[in-house]
Amino acid sequence: MYPLEEGSFAPRNHWYVAAWSSEVTRKPLERIILDSVVILYRTGEGGVTALAGLCPHRGFPLAKGELVGDDIECPYHGLRFGPEGACTHIPSQDTIPAACRLRSYPIAERWQWLWIWMGDPALADEALIPDHREALLTDPHFRCAGGNYYAVPGRYVLMHDNLLDLNHVPFLHRNTFGGDGGGAIQVPEVSSEGNRVTCTFTQPAIDCPPFLSDLLGYQGPVSRRYVSQFFAPCLHVIVDIIEKLDPVTGQTEPLGSLLHIHAVTPATADSAHYFQGEGQNFSKTEPCLSEAFRSSQMVTDALDEDMSATRLIERSIRLQRGRLPEVLLKADKAAVLGRRMIQALIDAEASMQAAARDE
Amino acid sequence: MYPLEEGSFAPRNHWYVAAWSSEVTRKPLERIILDSVVILYRTGEGGVTALAGLCPHRGFPLAKGELVGDDIECPYHGLRFGPEGACTHIPSQDTIPAACRLRSYPIAERWQWLWIWMGDPALADEALIPDHREALLTDPHFRCAGGNYYAVPGRYVLMHDNLLDLNHVPFLHRNTFGGDGGGAIQVPEVSSEGNRVTCTFTQPAIDCPPFLSDLLGYQGPVSRRYVSQFFAPCLHVIVDIIEKLDPVTGQTEPLGSLLHIHAVTPATADSAHYFQGEGQNFSKTEPCLSEAFRSSQMVTDALDEDMSATRLIERSIRLQRGRLPEVLLKADKAAVLGRRMIQALIDAEASMQAAARDE
Amino acid sequence: MYPLEEGSFAPRNHWYVAAWSSEVTRKPLERIILDSVVILYRTGEGGVTALAGLCPHRGFPLAKGELVGDDIECPYHGLRFGPEGACTHIPSQDTIPAACRLRSYPIAERWQWLWIWMGDPALADEALIPDHREALLTDPHFRCAGGNYYAVPGRYVLMHDNLLDLNHVPFLHRNTFGGDGGGAIQVPEVSSEGNRVTCTFTQPAIDCPPFLSDLLGYQGPVSRRYVSQFFAPCLHVIVDIIEKLDPVTGQTEPLGSLLHIHAVTPATADSAHYFQGEGQNFSKTEPCLSEAFRSSQMVTDALDEDMSATRLIERSIRLQRGRLPEVLLKADKAAVLGRRMIQALIDAEASMQAAARDE
Repeated sequence: MYPLEEGSFAPRNHWYVAAWSSEVTRKPLERIILDSVVILYRTGEGGVTALAGLCPHRGFPLAKGELVGDDIECPYHGLRFGPEGACTHIPSQDTIPAACRLRSYPIAERWQWLWIWMGDPALADEALIPDHREALLTDPHFRCAGGNYYAVPGRYVLMHDNLLDLNHVPFLHRNTFGGDGGGAIQVPEVSSEGNRVTCTFTQPAIDCPPFLSDLLGYQGPVSRRYVSQFFAPCLHVIVDIIEKLDPVTGQTEPLGSLLHIHAVTPATADSAHYFQGEGQNFSKTEPCLSEAFRSSQMVTDALDEDMSATRLIERSIRLQRGRLPEVLLKADKAAVLGRRMIQALIDAEASMQAAARDE
Repeated sequence: MYPLEEGSFAPRNHWYVAAWSSEVTRKPLERIILDSVVILYRTGEGGVTALAGLCPHRGFPLAKGELVGDDIECPYHGLRFGPEGACTHIPSQDTIPAACRLRSYPIAERWQWLWIWMGDPALADEALIPDHREALLTDPHFRCAGGNYYAVPGRYVLMHDNLLDLNHVPFLHRNTFGGDGGGAIQVPEVSSEGNRVTCTFTQPAIDCPPFLSDLLGYQGPVSRRYVSQFFAPCLHVIVDIIEKLDPVTGQTEPLGSLLHIHAVTPATADSAHYFQGEGQNFSKTEPCLSEAFRSSQMVTDALDEDMSATRLIERSIRLQRGRLPEVLLKADKAAVLGRRMIQALIDAEASMQAAARDE
Repeated sequence: MYPLEEGSFAPRNHWYVAAWSSEVTRKPLERIILDSVVILYRTGEGGVTALAGLCPHRGFPLAKGELVGDDIECPYHGLRFGPEGACTHIPSQDTIPAACRLRSYPIAERWQWLWIWMGDPALADEALIPDHREALLTDPHFRCAGGNYYAVPGRYVLMHDNLLDLNHVPFLHRNTFGGDGGGAIQVPEVSSEGNRVTCTFTQPAIDCPPFLSDLLGYQGPVSRRYVSQFFAPCLHVIVDIIEKLDPVTGQTEPLGSLLHIHAVTPATADSAHYFQGEGQNFSKTEPCLSEAFRSSQMVTDALDEDMSATRLIERSIRLQRGRLPEVLLKADKAAVLGRRMIQALIDAEASMQAAARDE
């Protein structure tokens, strides 16, 4: 098994981030999500539509088409479909066959991104979307900015593995993030509840990393603590708490916190989508760190390092024909919990479907 | 099923266009036809030879070799084969093993192209080649010119689908052919007989398309009628009849006709060959339309649109792992008849082979 | 079957050339050998280490890492492995799980290259490496130079076929080696003993090839004889003996000999490694022929011709879905013996494994 049981792909009856809100415009965007082709576009009133991306007539990809009002027009034979997926026009005939429609996917806008439900629409309860206030993305003390999108050249679980084990930071990101004064690495404290894995990495006494010194206006010893939450199967929010440290007394005093925001959405069996943003709860008057973050070469390089790791491990899996043995370490506890959670979600869906068939 | 029954590829005991006559010279041309590698070349006297394209010794592709007299010489170990496929020379030995020969394929030159028979040579009756006089290609009233060759990035049936439903013209070719004054589109009249599908598309009253106005020396209302014939499994000839229309009385008067000529030959399971030409029955003294047609950017763009559509639908099939559902419309009648005809030809061959085995 | 029985790949319990000695440095080199990822590097003392190339933790390719002392450090999470494959450091924990180690492969340095044993290490007897003195590579009368490395774009057996039938030289290498005054080609004398195939090609009376005239300081008739030895499954050494010929009396007088040195190592099912060098037993004071040989455009072109042939035949096999029929000629005797020898080595290993399972 690597990293899920053979034949397992991803749970469908869950919300996934489909796109940044800013990515979806009046020009249709194609995105393969959970192995299905989806198009996303905005109606004239600004609403977001998510439809199956292949014309039901001949399979032509609708993202190559243009909008006529709020309808998408297939560029091959001119069929049009409204924002609910109903066919509204067939140039060569007046009647619309009942089967001539596009599947429509529930969409919900939260914070700066669009969540999609690819499973049974009857189950698409928006209450199942992770609470963005609780996850701090819309917490008034934080200013957050998203906007980084990456096409991941490997299976989505590899990204979750990556995000759930921050021990990779001082090594994979040695020349970018990792050179921030890293210090001792500890096996995280890990717990899980429902669909959520929480883990905490601590660096009790390090020098304030240079890029933070600039922002915090402080140089000297700090205590740093990452509290990472994985809202399976898609969202990670890592609160990165920096405290001024008196090395003599051991007393600490808050300096500020960052938010590292990540969403991972399965595309095909060996590719995924990755959405990354940043937040901060200090320096409310200057330009937001996350903006600086997003445009910095260091961050681009660091995220390229993650993409590269994913691509290389996907290559290893392929070279080993899917049978890549793994030795798991103590520090993998969160990643293993994350995988098990995803596998359990997949298995639960399979059982539900089997039960439905038996009825 | 899309677009043929699973496991079906193409009927073999039929004539297919292998190449334009002008493509075949003293330099061997490799073409994969019905999943077999074929080489085509001309003998010193100008005859055309079609042989299996891989050396029977070690499988080296003979198209990399050169002619020695009328023999093709394998570049690897110097074996030579005559225009009938017999091995004529093995440098390292005097005797020629009986199995050391290339399969030779029947070839027939008609009009400007070369037809090949990939099936049982005993059945290769040239009378089965579509009658080019009847198909108007050699009709003395028409001047025709071929020469456009395209490697199709998708299965051959997608090209037949395309050619048998002209309703795609105003949409896919919106910026090329389709902008010619298009007007109302009608479900065609369709009939079939033997291996032939005939369908007629009419545009009773439109403005004469600009590119035709130039050629016909006429501006004003016209009635246009396309009579399309598909000679399964390879050839399409579309007569495009333009008549001057008196919009008051409804009376018409002939202006001229074009011929749109298409041949489609299966290459591999997901690629094909496409041969396209044009003809006209008017303006006999000026440069032939078809020459202008062939060199025009508009036509190149339009044919690129068809190639692109084929590539995109082939991608959709691949993304759906071969199971691309289709909703068929009234206007698809000709394409569906065409597919059924091809499927019937495949099934008939399979039955014949099964019967031969049982004897 | 082409060219081995279906499902056969390569014998494992044998020595193969992994790399030129000069290729292996303090920067790890990745090479896929017998379908396994291997890394090769040199310790501080100059010894050579060959280890499995994927980190046992998450499968990250270790060749992307750097050495820390004599240990290779995984760039993902910083695990380190010593030159015997034992894990020496896990940053996030103190204990090393027993399974956390890299397989170590026996390596032996002979002449200018490194031999590796990919099979059962208990059987890795260095006495099984072909005797380099006997094979003339370390014969004091010869000066030899290696250093050409090629990634072969086809299965390894195609390279053995190529090297065991020199009849391809005047054709495939017509514009490079083959234009050397080639003359008559003869079916070789072939014999085999143990894991060795010996064959002799003779050219009794030819003009001295131009590139040899320069080196030998002689122009005129020569008798040439190639004595080729294949030490299955990896090494070929061809002694190329040139003698001055008196065309009247038929008497000969030695001028000098060349050594053509080749090693072929299976990489994946459809790719291989090729190591090529040259030697000579004359002109001991001038620059070595093999150096000239290696830097000459003619030789580069000739070896590219072999790579190209391999790539094209691999394509033919793929186009024929693995079923490429072959007509074998008398001149193929050595190649067929070579294949049978390799097949026998594969079969013997399979029997040994089956017997071990039955015990």
